[in-house]
Amino acid sequence: MKISARNVLKGTVVSVDKGATTSHVKIEVSPGQVVTASITNEAVEALKLVAGGPAYAVIKASDVMVAVD
Amino acid sequence: MKISARNVLKGTVVSVDKGATTSHVKIEVSPGQVVTASITNEAVEALKLVAGGPAYAVIKASDVMVAVD
Amino acid sequence: MKISARNVLKGTVVSVDKGATTSHVKIEVSPGQVVTASITNEAVEALKLVAGGPAYAVIKASDVMVAVD
Amino acid sequence: MKISARNVLKGTVVSVDKGATTSHVKIEVSPGQVVTASITNEAVEALKLVAGGPAYAVIKASDVMVAVD
Amino acid sequence: MKISARNVLKGTVVSVDKGATTSHVKIEVSPGQVVTASITNEAVEALKLVAGGPAYAVIKASDVMVAVD
Amino acid sequence: MKISARNVLKGTVVSVDKGATTSHVKIEVSPGQVVTASITNEAVEALKLVAGGPAYAVIKASDVMVAVD
Repeated sequence: MKISARNVLKGTVVSVDKGATTSHVKIEVSPGQVVTASITNEAVEALKLVAGGPAYAVIKASDVMVAVD
Repeated sequence: MKISARNVLKGTVVSVDKGATTSHVKIEVSPGQVVTASITNEAVEALKLVAGGPAYAVIKASDVMVAVD
Repeated sequence: MKISARNVLKGTVVSVDKGATTSHVKIEVSPGQVVTASITNEAVEALKLVAGGPAYAVIKASDVMVAVD
Repeated sequence: MKISARNVLKGTVVSVDKGATTSHVKIEVSPGQVVTASITNEAVEALKLVAGGPAYAVIKASDVMVAVD
Repeated sequence: MKISARNVLKGTVVSVDKGATTSHVKIEVSPGQVVTASITNEAVEALKLVAGGPAYAVIKASDVMVAVD
Repeated sequence: MKISARNVLKGTVVSVDKGATTSHVKIEVSPGQVVTASITNEAVEALKLVAGGPAYAVIKASDVMVAVD
């Protein structure tokens, strides 16, 4: 599947923190650079996400903001 | 200002592509890894974004998806 | 690629309306039910989207609201 | 109330899964096609959502992605 | 229609700036406090939005971030 | 830090409701007008958000919808 989302960052799952319905998944996308995703528990199970496994962080361009100092 | 968004990736603006009301800003957040942001032209002007300048890509955790091969 | 987004609706592209930087793509996901996506022109080209072609509308669960009469 | 969100899909609530603060609501929008919404528990109560009741899945066009095989 | 989005701010349309496919609509939700919405031109026409008219800014709770100084 | 998000509403934290992984934070942005944010527990701790403290509600323009009666 090829997706319109312009941002697909390859990395490794660092941690999966499951809540009651929502999980927080941390993915290291480059050395020292970790991206946090808040997704459903259902998706964590469907994708069989576990720490140490490969994964992509996927982000739609319209969900990215820009900041400057 | 400190923000709740869990993802703040430091980088360099690669390009700013202005449309009629919406701009696409590309930020290199690590060597070879470019993030695209779709923001208002108004924001591009307010932040004085230009190619070559420093910038952060900021993303709320609930806007990050995860994918696996 | 398998994605965490819980909503992947199969359909047919009805129209592609290109703006300066942003396109609106309409996908019929069931008879008479059309979903509109606002994505970058760049994505339209990368996915070679044209009216009549097959496509999926993909939506993260946290981006779906519920309404009642 | 008339809303700018371009996607308003009529359906029937299939299930409501309540977490500590966040609920997952599944709505069948056409036979066999189910949309999952992640909304606040507060909203579930305000809208009195229960399985079997009528409901709309509402999605802003800028939150819809497109994918192809 | 009653919506799950927790934030419905009543106000007055201050301006409508139409682009090629996307419009920016400014709504004053309290004296001096203006909210900007980026929506499709199609929605602007469907809702007949014009400066001076009444309107609500509607925002899903999961799209609101928090910041501190 | 200066952010591209067009909507930064100054206010006072009214309540912080922590779930298993996700918190709901209510911010009064003008007398009687309360905005609800759904953010990670991690962010609540990082920003030391407590009822009574000052805070901003920050919203990207593309996440704001418009409605009319």
